Amino acid sequence: MTIVDRTAPTDHDILEVLQERWSPRAYEPVEIDEALLAKALEAARWSPSAYNAQPWRFVVARRGTEAFDRIVASLAEFNRMWAPNASVLILAIAETANEEGRANPTAVYDLGQAVAHLTIQAHADGLVVHQMSGFDAAAAATAFDLDERLQPVTVVALGSLGDAEELDAMLREREHAPRARKPIAQIVLAS
Amino acid sequence: MTIVDRTAPTDHDILEVLQERWSPRAYEPVEIDEALLAKALEAARWSPSAYNAQPWRFVVARRGTEAFDRIVASLAEFNRMWAPNASVLILAIAETANEEGRANPTAVYDLGQAVAHLTIQAHADGLVVHQMSGFDAAAAATAFDLDERLQPVTVVALGSLGDAEELDAMLREREHAPRARKPIAQIVLAS
Repeated sequence: MTIVDRTAPTDHDILEVLQERWSPRAYEPVEIDEALLAKALEAARWSPSAYNAQPWRFVVARRGTEAFDRIVASLAEFNRMWAPNASVLILAIAETANEEGRANPTAVYDLGQAVAHLTIQAHADGLVVHQMSGFDAAAAATAFDLDERLQPVTVVALGSLGDAEELDAMLREREHAPRARKPIAQIVLAS
Repeated sequence: MTIVDRTAPTDHDILEVLQERWSPRAYEPVEIDEALLAKALEAARWSPSAYNAQPWRFVVARRGTEAFDRIVASLAEFNRMWAPNASVLILAIAETANEEGRANPTAVYDLGQAVAHLTIQAHADGLVVHQMSGFDAAAAATAFDLDERLQPVTVVALGSLGDAEELDAMLREREHAPRARKPIAQIVLAS
């Protein structure tokens, strides 16, 4: 297994887990360590949210289960090339309105925060995470019979890092591409 | 200064920074440490996003500046009671479409992730963060002459923890309220 350094070339020192976190597509097709999965979900649980509404819901599908296959079936073709090797696929869902029908305008934003916390905990524990927006949200909602208040936003692949050399050429190239972000001056509009 | 333990009563061990992070309303009205602000923004910069679009933009307003006052003016009355003591107020903005007008359906979600990374870095460095959805997004967009592609989603108060005893009674009570989240069985829908 060729180890390619995926550490982010940051301009300032940041937490090691934030610097080393990245989104691989090479997964070992192994069973999840349940204790680590529980920690990742616990981290998501304690995320902040507007009015502490906690508008995040998760379908947690372990490989080999029917739920896992249903999530795989909803994925875009490109993601179906690699994501089925993950140990767990999590459908990340925003509760866009409460049970009384009152809309929550920050549900999707707060879901993003919860998945960020989950991801950071997982990486700190030696797992890897890759989030996908490339899936059929309507198909996933139907597959899990979700209430219309519940909006699938991403599918989160969680598992153990695999060997990039075993990926096909197009995926391998992406796996080795330099890590890059816009310069800070482009994201800070005014100050 | 009365120290009240704000550590989350988690069911599983999670990263100390995630367990100890909380959203205070008591801030010391001090100037920001610029090196720590740069680290927090750097953490946001290296967040993941769909297609690496990085659809996050920030107006970073330090206390004592006109930009800070403009953000304060956009806050809901309740938030105006405490947030002006923060060292920095950041208007967190989603780039909901690119310059060619193509919509980015995960812009708000990815902004949430970036602010989560910023928050975690800041807390690890001894700062505190409290995000607010209670502000007039349209007024803030006007105040900073934002293109209509750019949607303000939250205002992030960043600074140094202050003395909760100096808050007025209603705020003090919230500052001391037990930390709580839904049980995990309520947020995991199926597995």
